[in-house]
Amino acid sequence: MRAAVDKPGLTAGPLGLSDQTTALAEEMPIALVYNGTTLAVMMGSPADLIDFAVGFSLTEGLVDSADELGEVEVIRHAQGVELQMWLPEERAAAMAKRRRALAGPVGCGLCGVESLEQAMRALPRVTANLRLRRQDIHLATTAMRQQQPLHDETHAAHAAGFYRPGDGLILVREDVGRHNALDKLAGALALAGIDASTGAITVTSRLSSEMIQKTAQIGAPVLIAVSAPTALGVDLADQAGLTLVTRARGTRFDVFTHTHRIHSGEPQ
Amino acid sequence: MRAAVDKPGLTAGPLGLSDQTTALAEEMPIALVYNGTTLAVMMGSPADLIDFAVGFSLTEGLVDSADELGEVEVIRHAQGVELQMWLPEERAAAMAKRRRALAGPVGCGLCGVESLEQAMRALPRVTANLRLRRQDIHLATTAMRQQQPLHDETHAAHAAGFYRPGDGLILVREDVGRHNALDKLAGALALAGIDASTGAITVTSRLSSEMIQKTAQIGAPVLIAVSAPTALGVDLADQAGLTLVTRARGTRFDVFTHTHRIHSGEPQ
Repeated sequence: MRAAVDKPGLTAGPLGLSDQTTALAEEMPIALVYNGTTLAVMMGSPADLIDFAVGFSLTEGLVDSADELGEVEVIRHAQGVELQMWLPEERAAAMAKRRRALAGPVGCGLCGVESLEQAMRALPRVTANLRLRRQDIHLATTAMRQQQPLHDETHAAHAAGFYRPGDGLILVREDVGRHNALDKLAGALALAGIDASTGAITVTSRLSSEMIQKTAQIGAPVLIAVSAPTALGVDLADQAGLTLVTRARGTRFDVFTHTHRIHSGEPQ
Repeated sequence: MRAAVDKPGLTAGPLGLSDQTTALAEEMPIALVYNGTTLAVMMGSPADLIDFAVGFSLTEGLVDSADELGEVEVIRHAQGVELQMWLPEERAAAMAKRRRALAGPVGCGLCGVESLEQAMRALPRVTANLRLRRQDIHLATTAMRQQQPLHDETHAAHAAGFYRPGDGLILVREDVGRHNALDKLAGALALAGIDASTGAITVTSRLSSEMIQKTAQIGAPVLIAVSAPTALGVDLADQAGLTLVTRARGTRFDVFTHTHRIHSGEPQ
């Protein structure tokens, strides 16, 4: 599904200002609704919405597998899209507890220190012993550049892909938001029955703390980015057992944290 | 203040993997606390925090001028930074109403359609009749590239600047988050007594809906970006009377919405 629309405008070239029509990435509010109540509204690309619903539920730790969610209903309104999901009783109770925690940062009565404490959640420990050669990093980032149709058309989309040694880049998802692209990938992997611990996630964006949290939550052991990480991103990756490969361009890249998963030679 | 720290890691170069220390952008939770209660926690760069507190208050429409805020107190905790502000009684009452609205998107009981309606806020109409020549766009973006020390050191920061014809790029602020960079610029402008309606805002990031909302809120008539806008960003700019200049590289750029503010010739 095309997540872009054409808009008229002007363009400044060598001959001055002239009329031009440009393909722009669509962006709209997407409400994630569990058992009849909205947990979050994200601004995102209106494509791969089932993937998004499932992936957000997984990366935010609301469920441990897509099976727990039941069928996702996509309801389109004039104002945006609603993704309706139903949680089993036990999960719904855990979400209600989480909702009270989430409510802190937007002002349901917490003081400053309490809200700071709730901003950082505990992460599961990633233990998968995937090993990647230098050549794998090169293959993964090269393949990503060739599988970003929304970005190629609009220059306003991020991408997240899943790379497995020997299989190549087997799934890619795009979104105007980098966190959404990663959520959509997580959902697509789960729905395809692909275990995230068997490969590396590749993203086009910078690695700030939330990208690390989401990757650790689904158990992918290596995160490859063409851009740089933040210092907090590196600290969280270290705690979670995640290998960060950053500023990956061609066969050059940096590796932070748990560097044993990256080696120069042949696969072992 | 330096908002970067050095971290050890490996780098892959022509000779294989070798040890390297890299400067990384700091990132931490920053709680925006009004009258003793947290309204939001943002992940951001721990620099220019007073600018951030004032700018967030302005771009989110909590106050109309920095004078209304009183003194901002910066409190550093182990978990992050708390920015304590005090609103006058009338503003505090308006914020309490806004807090109930904000509570929707994170699940204080709203259904999907209600939360979608609350995701889009009404924008003021920008009316300033600034006019920019093609050369101004070139000058603004060229100057921005030369005033991004955090980005140059870490490759993980966005910037927002304020350009005035004749005066050049007079203020720049950086942050790991693009919305925060814009908020910090808005606060710096207000504290310096510079009227945002007298110039253009320049940003390094894509123009999604929230960047447009924040710019319109402080009354800047032109927003210049080196990257592309989303379709919703263009729609909101059209409604708010804002001129969008995008994909600005050298003397080439696109203009969407209210194109009368950009002309090819000399200043009028």
